[in-house]
Amino acid sequence: MPVVLHAEERGYFSGFLPGAAAGSHYQFRLDEAAILPDPASRLQPHGVHGVSEIVDPATFPWQVDRWSLPPVDQWVIYELHVGTFTSEGTFTAIIPHLPYLKDLGVTMLELMPIAQFPGRRNWGYDGVFPFAAQDSYGGPDGLRQLVDACHERGLGVILDVVYNHFGPEGNVLPQFGPYFTDRYRTPWGDAINYDGQDSDDVRRFFIESALMWVEECRVDAFRLDAVHQIFDAHAQPFLAELSAAVHRRAAELGRSVVLIAESDLNDPKLILPRVIGGYGLDAQWADDFCHALEVQLVGEKSAYAADYSEFAQLGQALRQAFVYTGEYSPSRRRRFGRSPEPARRDQFVVFTQNHDQVGNRPGGERLGHHLSLAEQKLAAATVLLSPFVPLLFMGEEYDEPHPFLYFTDHGDPDLVEAVRAGRQAEFPAWEWGEAAPDPQDVNTFARSQLDLALPEQGEHRALHTFYRELLTWRRSLPVLTDPTACREVSLWEEERVIMLRAHRDDESLHDVVAVLSFAETEQQLTLPLPTGNWVKLLDANAPHFPGDVESAQPSLASPGKVALTLASYAVLLFTRASAH
Amino acid sequence: MPVVLHAEERGYFSGFLPGAAAGSHYQFRLDEAAILPDPASRLQPHGVHGVSEIVDPATFPWQVDRWSLPPVDQWVIYELHVGTFTSEGTFTAIIPHLPYLKDLGVTMLELMPIAQFPGRRNWGYDGVFPFAAQDSYGGPDGLRQLVDACHERGLGVILDVVYNHFGPEGNVLPQFGPYFTDRYRTPWGDAINYDGQDSDDVRRFFIESALMWVEECRVDAFRLDAVHQIFDAHAQPFLAELSAAVHRRAAELGRSVVLIAESDLNDPKLILPRVIGGYGLDAQWADDFCHALEVQLVGEKSAYAADYSEFAQLGQALRQAFVYTGEYSPSRRRRFGRSPEPARRDQFVVFTQNHDQVGNRPGGERLGHHLSLAEQKLAAATVLLSPFVPLLFMGEEYDEPHPFLYFTDHGDPDLVEAVRAGRQAEFPAWEWGEAAPDPQDVNTFARSQLDLALPEQGEHRALHTFYRELLTWRRSLPVLTDPTACREVSLWEEERVIMLRAHRDDESLHDVVAVLSFAETEQQLTLPLPTGNWVKLLDANAPHFPGDVESAQPSLASPGKVALTLASYAVLLFTRASAH
Repeated sequence: MPVVLHAEERGYFSGFLPGAAAGSHYQFRLDEAAILPDPASRLQPHGVHGVSEIVDPATFPWQVDRWSLPPVDQWVIYELHVGTFTSEGTFTAIIPHLPYLKDLGVTMLELMPIAQFPGRRNWGYDGVFPFAAQDSYGGPDGLRQLVDACHERGLGVILDVVYNHFGPEGNVLPQFGPYFTDRYRTPWGDAINYDGQDSDDVRRFFIESALMWVEECRVDAFRLDAVHQIFDAHAQPFLAELSAAVHRRAAELGRSVVLIAESDLNDPKLILPRVIGGYGLDAQWADDFCHALEVQLVGEKSAYAADYSEFAQLGQALRQAFVYTGEYSPSRRRRFGRSPEPARRDQFVVFTQNHDQVGNRPGGERLGHHLSLAEQKLAAATVLLSPFVPLLFMGEEYDEPHPFLYFTDHGDPDLVEAVRAGRQAEFPAWEWGEAAPDPQDVNTFARSQLDLALPEQGEHRALHTFYRELLTWRRSLPVLTDPTACREVSLWEEERVIMLRAHRDDESLHDVVAVLSFAETEQQLTLPLPTGNWVKLLDANAPHFPGDVESAQPSLASPGKVALTLASYAVLLFTRASAH
Repeated sequence: MPVVLHAEERGYFSGFLPGAAAGSHYQFRLDEAAILPDPASRLQPHGVHGVSEIVDPATFPWQVDRWSLPPVDQWVIYELHVGTFTSEGTFTAIIPHLPYLKDLGVTMLELMPIAQFPGRRNWGYDGVFPFAAQDSYGGPDGLRQLVDACHERGLGVILDVVYNHFGPEGNVLPQFGPYFTDRYRTPWGDAINYDGQDSDDVRRFFIESALMWVEECRVDAFRLDAVHQIFDAHAQPFLAELSAAVHRRAAELGRSVVLIAESDLNDPKLILPRVIGGYGLDAQWADDFCHALEVQLVGEKSAYAADYSEFAQLGQALRQAFVYTGEYSPSRRRRFGRSPEPARRDQFVVFTQNHDQVGNRPGGERLGHHLSLAEQKLAAATVLLSPFVPLLFMGEEYDEPHPFLYFTDHGDPDLVEAVRAGRQAEFPAWEWGEAAPDPQDVNTFARSQLDLALPEQGEHRALHTFYRELLTWRRSLPVLTDPTACREVSLWEEERVIMLRAHRDDESLHDVVAVLSFAETEQQLTLPLPTGNWVKLLDANAPHFPGDVESAQPSLASPGKVALTLASYAVLLFTRASAH
């Protein structure tokens, strides 16, 4: 029975629908025209084109009422795609694997976007209902079950939210208000109206979305997709308002909630405090780190070879997360970035790969596909022994052989054809040997699913064990993650060796050195080290489990310089065992 | 005789032309196509479509080698349009009038844009050669003569430069390089490419332009046109690079050069230091002040009535230059601006009107056209007794009766018709009673010329005397401009009275109070004042020249409250003559 909504100020309408309750379905009729779902719907039980369903968040039987989110410097993030992490492809299907992730050393699950998207298969960046957890993933209650189960095991949940564009199918917002603008252009069409007429309430829509995920689903953090596509000349930037609103609400709830930006700007403004002109976000991804590392491992084949060919650039990435701090970037054809000072090290998230690098290769192949086991260990060690916040992309820890392809499940045949053609144009068959997989084909999705039995098998097990070991050392040597410890990066350009040192010189001795060799042959190298009794904790060529270490490894009595034989792609970890 | 230019890196070409010398004419042939003038030309002797001429800046016989630019808090700016200030419409024709401006109390001449524009009549915002002083104004040597003459008299020169768009006729830049982008839209078409591929050298082009005006023409300051139309997501914003480059070069030359932004953002980021995330510009226009003042004087007729109808908003403008610091603006339909803190008072330029408010009225009528003499005095006092940097628009000081209309002299008939039609559409005859003046008609330009004989005549003389007197007091009471003095604004809403107080309580007593009544009738008001011997310095109803004052005016022995009879539109200035 239709209810007439009454106009309030500034474009809002309201009304009272007697009898409406959790489970009721509803739609809006605008003027005499289309009947549309609610853009702020909490659930689209029949997908983007169907009715909206009323959800009562108050009835969910939370098991964990309070848990303590660790500080960001303690985080180890695991990025996963709900649809392909398990064969079921649902929130709750992830729960049985939480012990595996906990055992690996992960502390935070980062879910690729889960806001309602068209169909059942999508990376999530085509979402069109920013308040609705994807129905085919299990909807909001499925998400709540997953979050609760994570908290029960001391794991946190990061949600990837897309506040820079909407997907091409099922977006009803343009019919509801001035949510978009043609003053700015994004690669995906009109930008969201964050600074034009009526933008206060456009902002409010997205801020309310974030607050909803915090309050109703208890997520612990956000990854904000591609903030460089949020165009905003307002004196009070949207991102600053978003972070202030989320932090304020979290404080009211007695919690802390963290905001992490994906940014292609190399601009620390995003993460600096508001009093010094920053936006007050907590952290940002550092793609430079990933690119510099990838080029040293795969060389000219890398898509990033033009900008990151120097070995010294990897040293820069390990020192300051950014490689480009104002230098000329050949691929961008302009100077790029600025110094990250005075941001802290625990404000940068680093990785060997994420969904983008993997999924945007024509065959969706993971970095491991191009690397030997030794090289994969080296890549992992570079990330996990860095002073930044590490992120793993699901499956990298055991060299998952399945690709992570680009897949969709659009309902509009024209759009299906356009996406298909776009993909083929981006990766022409003549260039990489076969036709680009069809994004709409259900097999493209199916081929992308993980095989979570593999971590127990053969070389997969060897790599998985090494990741576990690295993460165990990262946890048990606090100087590695302490944001106030001294960190030094030494680099031997010709030998392609990097030495990372973390130390603090207070009451007890904390001094840890990692040696990473990017050379493909064995070599001798003499390292300058403070005198002391250096004990080898880890050797990628002789992996073992922590606990066996101190008895198993001979110590090096160091006279200030230590001569080492470095295997190809060596990873060594030492600590100074006693005072000099 | 054509010379082939050789390609250098990043799109530059160079060559040596034997025999080229000052006065030589030249053009560029790009590929086999068009023959074009030099976009960095110093002189277009036959206009925008003609040849470029080599100019040797080293031969100009400067009379004044060094002069000392006063600090910004001492400035009184006079904005003038070279073409209409005198009947000759040239740089050098201004020189005989410099004693008049000096006598008035002006310290800085601000020239509306003088970069080469199409034809002989233009406000200057259609400029297309950012290195060439307009030929019909007298070219670069004419400008140098004016600057030298100013410096000789202790006056400085501010140049209005347009780095946000190019005019619609004669713009050759798109044929030379990637100077424009369609990623952002301005009201005047494609934006300048300040952050895309090859933008380093686009930025360099404009920075070199500014440095050229500083070095070759010795200008003292810039007014940067509409910086809110400079779109730039670079981690190192163009405006920050521009200000750093200009300040650095000025320091190398042993001079100081000041950058002032016209901004529609109410965002102090522009003028805050770079270390706290600012762009490091020196000052910005505060349009809010002008609008709040105008609405109190002309009421509902004002184009700004929707946003500035409250008397208290004028108080806000007098306290902090901005009225909107995040409040909802009805005309913008969004929250607007942010607090100007921690910017200083001498970082804001205020005015009763500038070329825009005047010229964008359909009849080009000045504010004085709508006001009585008493109201004009009140407006002047509000600006000139404010703690900010005052700007006068040419002629306002004697109520110039001629309009300042929008005029052009385009060569392209289609463009002429489009501009004409645009103007008629903006100001339809049915709305304001007659057809909008034809911008292309030479009479529209001629009608806009000043009559500089008027300041000696009748009511014109009365107003002019009052301006002089206000400026004399502004100079002789340092507490009025001291950026560290205490400033208080008290406001009686119902009575429509504002009291401005400037005082500092150090060794000698500096305590000045201005009373401004916006009421159209006489009224009694008791003002709270520190006890002391208050002497009336100025009374808009009984003007006199400074010097006569102390004997002529009775002093008020104040018991802490002073009862005054305020005439309609009263302006009174008091000082406390001795300790309490």
